[in-house]
Amino acid sequence: MILGQARVAIVGLGLMGGSLAAALGESRACGQVEGVARRQWSIDQALERGWIDHGTLDLQQGVSEADIVVLATPVRTIIQLIGRIGPWLRQGCLLMDLGSTKREIVAVMADLPPGVEPVGGHPMCGKELSGLEAAEPRLYEGAAFVLTPLECTSPAALELARELVRAVGAHPLILEAGRHDRLVGAVSHLPYCVAAALVQTAEEVGVEDDRLWELAASGFRDTSRLAASEVAMMRDILLTNREVVAELLRGYQGQIDRWLAALDSENELELERMMQALCSRRRSLSAIQNLRADR
Amino acid sequence: MILGQARVAIVGLGLMGGSLAAALGESRACGQVEGVARRQWSIDQALERGWIDHGTLDLQQGVSEADIVVLATPVRTIIQLIGRIGPWLRQGCLLMDLGSTKREIVAVMADLPPGVEPVGGHPMCGKELSGLEAAEPRLYEGAAFVLTPLECTSPAALELARELVRAVGAHPLILEAGRHDRLVGAVSHLPYCVAAALVQTAEEVGVEDDRLWELAASGFRDTSRLAASEVAMMRDILLTNREVVAELLRGYQGQIDRWLAALDSENELELERMMQALCSRRRSLSAIQNLRADR
Repeated sequence: MILGQARVAIVGLGLMGGSLAAALGESRACGQVEGVARRQWSIDQALERGWIDHGTLDLQQGVSEADIVVLATPVRTIIQLIGRIGPWLRQGCLLMDLGSTKREIVAVMADLPPGVEPVGGHPMCGKELSGLEAAEPRLYEGAAFVLTPLECTSPAALELARELVRAVGAHPLILEAGRHDRLVGAVSHLPYCVAAALVQTAEEVGVEDDRLWELAASGFRDTSRLAASEVAMMRDILLTNREVVAELLRGYQGQIDRWLAALDSENELELERMMQALCSRRRSLSAIQNLRADR
Repeated sequence: MILGQARVAIVGLGLMGGSLAAALGESRACGQVEGVARRQWSIDQALERGWIDHGTLDLQQGVSEADIVVLATPVRTIIQLIGRIGPWLRQGCLLMDLGSTKREIVAVMADLPPGVEPVGGHPMCGKELSGLEAAEPRLYEGAAFVLTPLECTSPAALELARELVRAVGAHPLILEAGRHDRLVGAVSHLPYCVAAALVQTAEEVGVEDDRLWELAASGFRDTSRLAASEVAMMRDILLTNREVVAELLRGYQGQIDRWLAALDSENELELERMMQALCSRRRSLSAIQNLRADR
């Protein structure tokens, strides 16, 4: 199968699925793009923008003719969908997903009927807004796009997945699912919890003194931004990566304890040592392309 | 004293002092701007950009002729400077500062010789970069600028401070020093510690697995940005607001405990309830001018 001739069905036309359709639609990189959604409105919008060639509310119809199916819903819906659509897929169909955790998804993919070619996927991009309204053709540009092939995945299917990733401007990164979940836990799921607890703590101060929000500026804005993440998406992420996130949160509390100890003991040298290491580290990270402020 | 005729001396030409000089220099809102710095390089740079009319390395000379003195150094240096320059200031001189904590500064200001007019100040703007290189004339534009007058401050002096704040495009907000320190602790100093502990925790994962940073994207970038804050500035802030920050960090740990409890018990309803409240709250904050993404 060549991407240029493939019929791609995208299930879920929210921020991620909509942006994937947009990128494929604008680049004309594949044969046809079919949108599968729950609301006619999404299909109409995507058709109007020229991001999909066809759209349907009928899941079976949408996926059964496709050469590539991409599941772009919250993680636990992806898990349910894999079980449902398995029997409907064509022989040799590449089944991908865009879910933010991979272990549980890959475990369900392993039970697909023989002949289906599963590859887990997770593009490292997004924003705190959700829905097709927030979708944009360039969302994937320059992003790392993790692929987690299974033992049963053929080299040809993995290559097709890679080709699709490159077609939307991202770069493929092959990782084992468990390793992915731990790394992404640290750079994405932990930051969500960190931002969430910050908003909760500030909120308590704000209830006592309503001038609080007049003083909040760019520092608070950026540190708390992820707390606005879409609920259904984050809930499924946290529930399917519970142990990893909990372990990271315990490590994080240990770091907060170090700050408390240095403050309580007025340990100026220790404070300065920690801050200097952090400042150098964080500034060096700014050189990493994904972390550049202009992105 | 009218601002348009006042000689303003700015002590410290870093990000905040340099930007103040730039805003005053470009708006021609005051009579003259004098830059007082420790390095000739800073003075040469500020002169070259037209941000100051004169510059000196001599503190006494710089402040003794001024109608308004603005101390723009890290907080503990401000505290030392207040004690040193008090005897050199002209009768009726308005003494302001740009320090990020106010209680300790205001306490030292209370001991100034009679005839000096002290007003604590804290502009709610900045960035994680430091130094004159990062200064810009529009940094203060649209920002809240807290003023903490003392009992001895005359209404005329406070009005002059207000006028200076408006001249650089900021809006004055009168607050009692202790109240300021608690509010700013919640929206600025706590976020620093939160970002710092995040970088430390991620760093530990990154040491084990060096692919970590390839997966970090805009979420990690924004949540961790404050960890790159200038060390001398943040160290003085944390040390002069220790009790407040420690109390906030303990409250923050309580919130992290709630997330851990919900994750450990797989309490889906509680997770969803917390996330829904947060998402609405954080999205409603985005309507606040200072927190808008386009700033």
